[in-house]
Amino acid sequence: MVAAQHEQGGKERILATARGLFNLRGFHQTSMAELASSAQVSVGQIYRLFKSKEDIISAIVEVDSGERRNEIAALRNRLCTGEIGVEEAFEHLFQGALADHEEALSFDILAEGFRSEPVGETIAALCGNLRPWLRDFACAANPDLGEDSLGDAEELILACMFGFGHRSLARPKLSAEATAKGAARMIVAALRGID
Amino acid sequence: MVAAQHEQGGKERILATARGLFNLRGFHQTSMAELASSAQVSVGQIYRLFKSKEDIISAIVEVDSGERRNEIAALRNRLCTGEIGVEEAFEHLFQGALADHEEALSFDILAEGFRSEPVGETIAALCGNLRPWLRDFACAANPDLGEDSLGDAEELILACMFGFGHRSLARPKLSAEATAKGAARMIVAALRGID
Repeated sequence: MVAAQHEQGGKERILATARGLFNLRGFHQTSMAELASSAQVSVGQIYRLFKSKEDIISAIVEVDSGERRNEIAALRNRLCTGEIGVEEAFEHLFQGALADHEEALSFDILAEGFRSEPVGETIAALCGNLRPWLRDFACAANPDLGEDSLGDAEELILACMFGFGHRSLARPKLSAEATAKGAARMIVAALRGID
Repeated sequence: MVAAQHEQGGKERILATARGLFNLRGFHQTSMAELASSAQVSVGQIYRLFKSKEDIISAIVEVDSGERRNEIAALRNRLCTGEIGVEEAFEHLFQGALADHEEALSFDILAEGFRSEPVGETIAALCGNLRPWLRDFACAANPDLGEDSLGDAEELILACMFGFGHRSLARPKLSAEATAKGAARMIVAALRGID
């Protein structure tokens, strides 16, 4: 029990250190020796907990995907119980995407999604989970949407979420808050303007 | 003159080879020696034409940005002269974003945008060029849009363009054509539904 907790603590420390180093210098530019030195563990200890550097990035993606899934599930519940309206729900959805503070790391992860099967699968699974929930968001804005429009909405909302995660390279003029508010207003208008 | 042409040909061959290798294996995972061997030139010849590997990725981004800028400028002209309608213009705009066949490379480039100033500057300059044109697209859908709405539209359309460039990781259910058509319909509805 104590050993398992110790192992869990070690894993978390290595993941937190890896996250910082990968974001700053890049996943492929960071060696296991540098990671071990920054996390104050031995290289052997890292290899006892993770099979490879790819396994570390896979674990980071798993944690992030799980958190994001839980956040959006909670948001969907608040929308379905009427605690928040649909425009507010979209605003929070986009705020979550805009709040990505590790953008460089997130691009490394996405690139790795094409080159490492477990990373690609985790990203695909997250999107697969989100798709029906995004349809629920769209239906809350306009219950009369047909199947084709729901399919269009699913792709557009997902694209916005991916796109907002990368905005700092586009030198945005609006704050994250104003962007989320404006995008929510536009998406709801779009969903109500189609059928 | 002949020497300059020869140099240009060498540059283009190295860039085309680099593009393929970087997309397949990753920018940081490809060595100059591998690039030289694949492009059938010497490492010295690469260094006579490019200062560093970063300089090669910078050149790739410059070429791609220039092409994308020209495409969108041409599209804007076709919209302004009335050759195409606004929904068709957005459809072409999104098709261009969806047509990215080097997605893995594009993530490497975006990650590099945070770590290399010239790459970040080229991406920012492209977005800076596009912003007023995207406003023109938005005005063509609804000439009554106020300053705040134009600002919102600019950010949302840019986010869609970034997001559609990454869609294969999200395991899309619709074809690129259907996605571009659906997104254009929704964006025009959004622009007409706000003020």
